[in-house]
Amino acid sequence: MGRWEPGAPQRLQRAALELFTEQGFDATTVAGIAERAGVTERTFFRHYADKREVLFAGEDEFREPFLRAVTEGPAGAPALDLVRGALAAACAAFEAGRSRDHARARQRVVDAHPPLRERELLKLAGLAAAVGDALVARGVPPLRARLGGELAVSVFAAAFALWTAPGEERDLVRLQAEAMAEVLALVDRPGELPGQVPGQVPG
Amino acid sequence: MGRWEPGAPQRLQRAALELFTEQGFDATTVAGIAERAGVTERTFFRHYADKREVLFAGEDEFREPFLRAVTEGPAGAPALDLVRGALAAACAAFEAGRSRDHARARQRVVDAHPPLRERELLKLAGLAAAVGDALVARGVPPLRARLGGELAVSVFAAAFALWTAPGEERDLVRLQAEAMAEVLALVDRPGELPGQVPGQVPG
Repeated sequence: MGRWEPGAPQRLQRAALELFTEQGFDATTVAGIAERAGVTERTFFRHYADKREVLFAGEDEFREPFLRAVTEGPAGAPALDLVRGALAAACAAFEAGRSRDHARARQRVVDAHPPLRERELLKLAGLAAAVGDALVARGVPPLRARLGGELAVSVFAAAFALWTAPGEERDLVRLQAEAMAEVLALVDRPGELPGQVPGQVPG
Repeated sequence: MGRWEPGAPQRLQRAALELFTEQGFDATTVAGIAERAGVTERTFFRHYADKREVLFAGEDEFREPFLRAVTEGPAGAPALDLVRGALAAACAAFEAGRSRDHARARQRVVDAHPPLRERELLKLAGLAAAVGDALVARGVPPLRARLGGELAVSVFAAAFALWTAPGEERDLVRLQAEAMAEVLALVDRPGELPGQVPGQVPG
């Protein structure tokens, strides 16, 4: 196969997932992933810094719509509305671009390999901080913004864990709305109960 | 010095912190930490599995009172009251057993070294999951319990970051109460505004 062609990232992601599943994370090499994907090692490193990164390409796809929804949310919207709008928009964008079967297989591999789980936690912490910074830029006080960023990522991660669970059929947008409703039930916000899923996109 | 004596864990923590600060994480060895602390390597490994763990002893001190406060909270208490009581109790216990100067120096080292930051995120994720399990055992629905555990750890981590910031003088119990008030302001819970810090220990 040629040195580069459209679809190389997708083939590398699939190859890495197969090899981590078949032979484990430690025994898998970048050379092996590239060979399975039918590309050169040089092509691998054009797309990914190391063999962990190849399983986290989806995070970048998620991050951009998430931050854009905070940045471009309605003027004067309360911080919680910005968070809810961002979660709904990002989950819709993420779900549209992903195969659920692939996401399930990928999550099983991440959960089973501590080095991948560590990378995942670092990515999520970075996303939470970025959402917090975006909220600060919208005028939210820094401590509230930090906690809003972490809340958003907690809700996303909880919804994603359900979405990739065996047998679960509800979609990701619905699941994040249900998770957010549980947060509001936790803090006893009047007028919202779990099971009632209000519209998520403000404005 | 003898092979074991009271205070070896504290001396190892101090030695590790000094060496990570002076020469960085990568250049520091277990042998070097043990030598600086005046104990044998065998004594090191009696207390810690590796050179990262020695900086996370405080997390175990925090974890136990945190979980106990959830487990032993008042019968029939709402999940949020269990979380708030646990945060207040755990922060009080943690603060009582720690030097703030030591905590500040330690946090600077952790934040500056990605392998230590990764370990910290794993520890916090484990704590959040344990708090979630403790809430489930108190009858809280699983999704709400998971999010409650993550909320508790987010509030603790935000308060701890402020507590260890240069020049900050408010105590940890006060800071966690202010962080929780910001969460409630974020979700617009009526009757509570940031700056009003309600009593934190239920019952």
